[in-house]
Amino acid sequence: MLNFQFYNPARIIFGRGEEENVGKYIADYGVKKVLLHYGKNSIKKTGLYDRIVKSLEENNIEFIELGGVCPNPVLSLVRKGIEICVNENVDFILAVGGGSVIDSAKAISVGAKTDEDIWEFFMDKKKVIYETVPIGTVLTIAATGSESSTSTVITNEENLFKRSISSSKYIPKFSILNPELTFTLPAYQTACGCSDILSHLFERYFTQIENVDFTDRLLEAAMKTIIINASAAIEKPKDYNVRAEIMWVGTLAHNGLLNTGRIGDWASHHIEHELSALYNLTHGAGLSIVTPAWMKYVYKENPDKFIQLAHRVFDIDFAYNEKEKTIVSMIEKLESWYKSLGLPTRLCEVGIDDSRFSEMAEKCLVARGLTGNFKKLNKDDICNIYKLAL
Amino acid sequence: MLNFQFYNPARIIFGRGEEENVGKYIADYGVKKVLLHYGKNSIKKTGLYDRIVKSLEENNIEFIELGGVCPNPVLSLVRKGIEICVNENVDFILAVGGGSVIDSAKAISVGAKTDEDIWEFFMDKKKVIYETVPIGTVLTIAATGSESSTSTVITNEENLFKRSISSSKYIPKFSILNPELTFTLPAYQTACGCSDILSHLFERYFTQIENVDFTDRLLEAAMKTIIINASAAIEKPKDYNVRAEIMWVGTLAHNGLLNTGRIGDWASHHIEHELSALYNLTHGAGLSIVTPAWMKYVYKENPDKFIQLAHRVFDIDFAYNEKEKTIVSMIEKLESWYKSLGLPTRLCEVGIDDSRFSEMAEKCLVARGLTGNFKKLNKDDICNIYKLAL
Repeated sequence: MLNFQFYNPARIIFGRGEEENVGKYIADYGVKKVLLHYGKNSIKKTGLYDRIVKSLEENNIEFIELGGVCPNPVLSLVRKGIEICVNENVDFILAVGGGSVIDSAKAISVGAKTDEDIWEFFMDKKKVIYETVPIGTVLTIAATGSESSTSTVITNEENLFKRSISSSKYIPKFSILNPELTFTLPAYQTACGCSDILSHLFERYFTQIENVDFTDRLLEAAMKTIIINASAAIEKPKDYNVRAEIMWVGTLAHNGLLNTGRIGDWASHHIEHELSALYNLTHGAGLSIVTPAWMKYVYKENPDKFIQLAHRVFDIDFAYNEKEKTIVSMIEKLESWYKSLGLPTRLCEVGIDDSRFSEMAEKCLVARGLTGNFKKLNKDDICNIYKLAL
Repeated sequence: MLNFQFYNPARIIFGRGEEENVGKYIADYGVKKVLLHYGKNSIKKTGLYDRIVKSLEENNIEFIELGGVCPNPVLSLVRKGIEICVNENVDFILAVGGGSVIDSAKAISVGAKTDEDIWEFFMDKKKVIYETVPIGTVLTIAATGSESSTSTVITNEENLFKRSISSSKYIPKFSILNPELTFTLPAYQTACGCSDILSHLFERYFTQIENVDFTDRLLEAAMKTIIINASAAIEKPKDYNVRAEIMWVGTLAHNGLLNTGRIGDWASHHIEHELSALYNLTHGAGLSIVTPAWMKYVYKENPDKFIQLAHRVFDIDFAYNEKEKTIVSMIEKLESWYKSLGLPTRLCEVGIDDSRFSEMAEKCLVARGLTGNFKKLNKDDICNIYKLAL
């Protein structure tokens, strides 16, 4: 186990109806003016927007709106948000939506407190973030874990680079998680969210650091829960307890806890980011394509880790003389699970051919050199993984 | 699943050598004068005291000492600490030791910021804590989880009441967890610590709240880890990875995370507190006596929960027509595990007879009415559990 620091001061407010108290929670921070940041029109259709505004007004909190965040949130809207925050003296950002809205809010919170260009923080990981505008969130999709994570992912539309930064400075002060808000989420988006959550668990699970059995077991507990409940949510989208389990796993999958003492892999995420940046594919659907291909390509680096996963999470009996078969069965089981949720597992299913593999692999390695830690991957490796996904 | 809030802003600094940076971490809080709080002489014997003092001096941090905390920490020393903090304008408390030292520090941190008598907070749960002196810790025993928990347990020597309070106000600002500091811990104390940790997991596991499967699985992951590693630590006390797993489970067992959305039981803890208060028994040894007796007395309230535990944690095959036998086997396995660690499982082993059962049961219920949530227990129930433990 490696030395580590774990610090996550996000207050999680979990349960039915809590979004109606959002104004009260913001008021605790002595806020004068809020930027209300959200996506397209879904929060207006569901009535969530009205409940949020009512709560802000009841608590005499002034606010300015910035809607329009799209999946794979873009730099231009982040710049617009920064401008508003600076010009209007915004001292709190309320993000209402899924990971895209929260990621956009995080980037705004950094940009509003620096004279430097915000994109430079994404291209140069060594730049230090000193100050941010505090954030609160009302989560509407269980997926990215951004509601209490240190990360934000933004796409620069000018060059289609999709890049992340990581800092504890913009971890939300509070995040309101009401599973009921995800009842109306379409099956495909539910599935994409669960695919993203499972990937966050895989990325941490596949480490080459030894003696991290406790976090292995916690990760396995989370994986089992997401695998069972994702299927249940497709069948019963309005089952509170199913939605609640998914939502809580989604947060814990990415709040830093399950990465303690170990170094995650993250190659699948990086390889997928190039797909979703170039083809505007939903992240979770990209991951259901990339992950099995990545597994097939790398499992020989540490077959026994895959056997443990097969046995403990996918309920495949351990058989000493059938290790390879066990791993293949597990990947097949994973692919079947993705398919049962309506997710693609091959690039051809989403109309992507091999014409831009080389370009994507090159972009994936810009400012990185290699990607992945379970197996360090170069350009050829990445192209081979794309090929396995064809 | 119930609505919940989860908030734990303790910074965990985990790993080899971190205690040597303690002065630097304290300096981050702009501290002027520290109360250095510790137990008996063990930290002086091991050289830990010298390393702490050196780090404080290197960072120009003035400090006053208060040693002498004993297991089952007492009110009189808490009062002394409060007096020092008030008279000397202490603005930070550094607790170096196990749960007793940290609990004592927490009580001091409350008392130093109120005009009311500190014991009143322990006897009246409704009293609100508004302010505390900030705390940091260097942990030397994995057991109580006090290093990031909301609780403190203090014994009033005048009437031998042992009582706890709970507040997020005194969660340590940081806790330094270096597993190497537990290498010299005697086998018996290691075992008592692991017994306490396992009990913290049981207390949360045995809930009557339905649909909390994710936290069930996380608890099971933690239980498996502690059961395996406690035995390993007795055999190999200086194995870093074994000590590290125990230490990290100990913290997570009691930081609030594994209680989210559910109501724990806590009867075993309450019933044990009366034993350790009256007979000055080590808490973990009291728990290895009380827990199996409690299980035998209450399992009929929800046998399937016990079956799940037997199957998932104690590796006992599920057999539809042998449910009762499965539960009995599990309790036997648990008792064998306690014994293998050198812990008692019967009152007679520690020289306690039935002469004061009634008195302890009465004290246990003072200011509570009943104890436990899995099964609500009255005075007769508690006496019956003590009898089962004879």
